[in-house]
Amino acid sequence: MMRTRPLKVALLGCGVVGSEVARIMTTHADDLAARIGAPVELAGVAVRRPDKVRGGIDPALITTDATALVKRGDIDVVVEVIGGIEPARALITTAFEHGASVVSANKALLAQDGATLYAAAEQHGQDLYYEAAVAGAIPLIRPLRESLAGDKINRVMGIVNGTTNFILDKMDSTGAGYQEALDEATALGYAEADPTADVEGFDAAAKAAILAGIAFHTRVRLDDVYREGMTEVTAADFASARQMGCTIKLLAICERAADGESVTARVHPAMIPLSHPLASVREAYNAVFVEAEAAGQLMFYGPGAGGSPTASAVLGDVVAVCRNRLNEATGPGESAYTQLPVSPMGDVVTRYHISLDVADKPGVLAQVATVFAEHGVSIDTVRQHGRQDGGGEASLVVVTHRAPDAALSGTVEALRKLDTVRGVASIMRVEGE
Amino acid sequence: MMRTRPLKVALLGCGVVGSEVARIMTTHADDLAARIGAPVELAGVAVRRPDKVRGGIDPALITTDATALVKRGDIDVVVEVIGGIEPARALITTAFEHGASVVSANKALLAQDGATLYAAAEQHGQDLYYEAAVAGAIPLIRPLRESLAGDKINRVMGIVNGTTNFILDKMDSTGAGYQEALDEATALGYAEADPTADVEGFDAAAKAAILAGIAFHTRVRLDDVYREGMTEVTAADFASARQMGCTIKLLAICERAADGESVTARVHPAMIPLSHPLASVREAYNAVFVEAEAAGQLMFYGPGAGGSPTASAVLGDVVAVCRNRLNEATGPGESAYTQLPVSPMGDVVTRYHISLDVADKPGVLAQVATVFAEHGVSIDTVRQHGRQDGGGEASLVVVTHRAPDAALSGTVEALRKLDTVRGVASIMRVEGE
Repeated sequence: MMRTRPLKVALLGCGVVGSEVARIMTTHADDLAARIGAPVELAGVAVRRPDKVRGGIDPALITTDATALVKRGDIDVVVEVIGGIEPARALITTAFEHGASVVSANKALLAQDGATLYAAAEQHGQDLYYEAAVAGAIPLIRPLRESLAGDKINRVMGIVNGTTNFILDKMDSTGAGYQEALDEATALGYAEADPTADVEGFDAAAKAAILAGIAFHTRVRLDDVYREGMTEVTAADFASARQMGCTIKLLAICERAADGESVTARVHPAMIPLSHPLASVREAYNAVFVEAEAAGQLMFYGPGAGGSPTASAVLGDVVAVCRNRLNEATGPGESAYTQLPVSPMGDVVTRYHISLDVADKPGVLAQVATVFAEHGVSIDTVRQHGRQDGGGEASLVVVTHRAPDAALSGTVEALRKLDTVRGVASIMRVEGE
Repeated sequence: MMRTRPLKVALLGCGVVGSEVARIMTTHADDLAARIGAPVELAGVAVRRPDKVRGGIDPALITTDATALVKRGDIDVVVEVIGGIEPARALITTAFEHGASVVSANKALLAQDGATLYAAAEQHGQDLYYEAAVAGAIPLIRPLRESLAGDKINRVMGIVNGTTNFILDKMDSTGAGYQEALDEATALGYAEADPTADVEGFDAAAKAAILAGIAFHTRVRLDDVYREGMTEVTAADFASARQMGCTIKLLAICERAADGESVTARVHPAMIPLSHPLASVREAYNAVFVEAEAAGQLMFYGPGAGGSPTASAVLGDVVAVCRNRLNEATGPGESAYTQLPVSPMGDVVTRYHISLDVADKPGVLAQVATVFAEHGVSIDTVRQHGRQDGGGEASLVVVTHRAPDAALSGTVEALRKLDTVRGVASIMRVEGE
């Protein structure tokens, strides 16, 4: 009972992802039709540079007028793979107004203004799907918002940026410093010429906002996410991590508070035990670890970026949206009913690994320990060793028990004021235990 | 815009899984209502022994007449967690006839007769969901049939039985033999008193049939799945595996043939490299590795069994089915349009690791190598070493390149006939490279 009138897809953007979407739609047209229950066809492709050669796409479909394309009125699904805030936002809302559903890979826009998009979709009875916005090809949005819809998610912790994982994995496996590993990532095409969005954690923070909102059924915006980049992670940090049986990853962590009354979302480098499933995620792979009340511990692993993987996620959404249209129905919309507030970083309960350069004389450890006690932070382990150079300095490594981040950073601030503490060599959170 | 008339769920079976489903439906009723868009209530619970105390369930809901319950006509969703073929099959088809959709965790029934159930669901315009039937809480059915609906899956390889993974992990980590590890699994409740279904691979074979059908959009029945158990895996096999940088797992492997014209499904113990993501799956955890044309390599990991994890999967399906009902729509049904045939095990292309006890004299290796060559099987590596006991015997370990399983088993048969081959100590396939 295949419908013969095809569903029409408009593609906004024809770069690495868009061209793969177009290619697969052509080469796998029969499979897509069988799975949807109706043929699906590419009805138009909006690009900035129409003169660029685009293999396999009928030139008659190419336009530079994206607005006119989404306003055509006969489009069933708009695939937005332009990225950035504008014109993507205006095009998506225009698409809804003109009776199209939207599949987007735009993490920045969804993290900054997801609520507006959801509201526009609902107002016009359209779907908004965005599996490709977080962790590329890895099915994650659908499992979180559908498979786990009968469960209570308490924690989502993931490696959601492939560039930084590639750099950190290199540092770990070769002993390279940050700059050397970044240079290799750039040479191999894993890092962009300006790597700021990746290495400073902006990209991961956008994904954390999206994941936290879905996991906890509340609204979390990019501004709510605490963010630290990984540019200051050193080879020495990896050596310290290894002594603790850990490695270092840039993690996006979304948590429900112990009392259940608030949530937190953050991105920062952290030590995790080598035995943790996330520790063995190599190169540019992504993986997201989910803890749910009934399901327990789940992990989703795969390529987090790239044209083909992202196109796979986009096309899975296209199939779902097309099926919904044939059913004259829509899939799940925004679910923000819990209205849980997002707490600041100071409220996050975590552990610190702190390396101090201290004067090598009696009483220093007692002084340091007193500062921790005054801030209500309990110490788990201390390692102390004199410097090889005999310059009267020693190194002190303290690992704390779990405490509020505010107490931990207050402790560090007080330690810096001690005469006997010459410097704080590094501070890193410890997760996943 | 919450609908006030509740959706009604009938629960068939109230054991480890069913009681968890009932408990979560009660304790998390508000969350479920918010996510569905309407309240959902437990309308009846069919059990065999009504006198057994069931904490938290209103005794008025308990019945021994499952058929009458599914025939009531006001039931929206029937949750079938009885297991086995009958009466589960009759109850499910009766449920469809009386206007209810079905959520099932019944792998045996789905593997044996999924097509009949799908046809009945479609005939009556009802949903058949079964996320819990494979790999417990791990979202797997939905990702395969929805998230990857725009992609082409070439391979699904997984650890889908927690009992056997617990046993093999114990053997690997402690050097224990099979019986010792099984005894520990039994004592800890990971293995049943009669472990046959697990250790002989029947449970995994049912899951392989379900996964292959979904992944390749064709019909694969339990009888189509080649099956070898893991009762003959020895501590010596693990020692051999370690020498190759491998471990041993009981794997369910579903593959599309290189020419794309057929598929295979099989369950057997296999050596996999320690660097493979499946190698680090410990204890009773499950994990499924998926290779798709565009998405690349994905892995899904989590608890494969247990009351709460399975209930999580069941309730995710209940939420989806309830949403579909409010939309007056149904989710994806059977997708078997490719009609790809299932090839026999002999056509599977794989590698063998073979340990032979041979006479310790010149010319044996040449004889053995000739047998491989005669069967068109190319040798990758050979290791030969004399026995410590000096009894005139040596041990020969041969690892082959990839070849059809029929050629490999023909080779082994011929080797057994050589005078100089005293015995074939072990044969194991090598996967994941």
